[in-house]
Amino acid sequence: MRSEESRSRRRGLDKERDLARRLWERGFASMRAPASGAKAKRFVQPDVIAAKGGSLFAFEVKARSEIPIYVEQDQVEKLAEWARRAGARPFFAIYYGGRWRFVPLERASRVGRNYRIDGESLSAALSMDELTA
Amino acid sequence: MRSEESRSRRRGLDKERDLARRLWERGFASMRAPASGAKAKRFVQPDVIAAKGGSLFAFEVKARSEIPIYVEQDQVEKLAEWARRAGARPFFAIYYGGRWRFVPLERASRVGRNYRIDGESLSAALSMDELTA
Repeated sequence: MRSEESRSRRRGLDKERDLARRLWERGFASMRAPASGAKAKRFVQPDVIAAKGGSLFAFEVKARSEIPIYVEQDQVEKLAEWARRAGARPFFAIYYGGRWRFVPLERASRVGRNYRIDGESLSAALSMDELTA
Repeated sequence: MRSEESRSRRRGLDKERDLARRLWERGFASMRAPASGAKAKRFVQPDVIAAKGGSLFAFEVKARSEIPIYVEQDQVEKLAEWARRAGARPFFAIYYGGRWRFVPLERASRVGRNYRIDGESLSAALSMDELTA
């Protein structure tokens, strides 16, 4: 992995694995999507999904060291469409400040063609304990 | 892709993509697991999952040109555990003779430490139309 982009991609992948593993440890069935490549991009799928006793969650994962976080409209629409079909609850899974927080998709604010997650969204977000309670 | 094993793995991957795409075309949300590598193998996850309106399906995919098909007990137990946690219906998704058929996990016969899917299991299996009806 040489470029900055590759490092960032690998870090994202590690965080997706971390999320899937933690959810499994809490009794959920979880699954990661394949790393985004040319072929994977043609598919609409979340980064990670988890389910327990028939309740299904879909996650778009963002690991960041700075806020606010901007998410492209296209990614949001794909997550929303997947969740709508599945009957799943869509979340942004944000790894920031050393922990996971979960922002329901409908709580992110629209800014032009993007969605914005700021300190206020994060303070109102669910913790891992709250999500998996 | 040079070795026989690589060719077989790539063929399996193509079929997983095919299944996910067909389920999506029929209105399901679907998702493939990452290709099995050293890291992926540590995770318990099906090859493909699909969901629609809160109903969840988990698939172990087998593309074969000959029957009977044998599935290792370890794979079956992982599929069963994932489905148990999720509240999903577990299936073997069999691509054989140019089409998909779906054998509910509990319908495969146990043979020693393996599970066996033969012509009889396939003739009692669900078609794509039946599965997605």
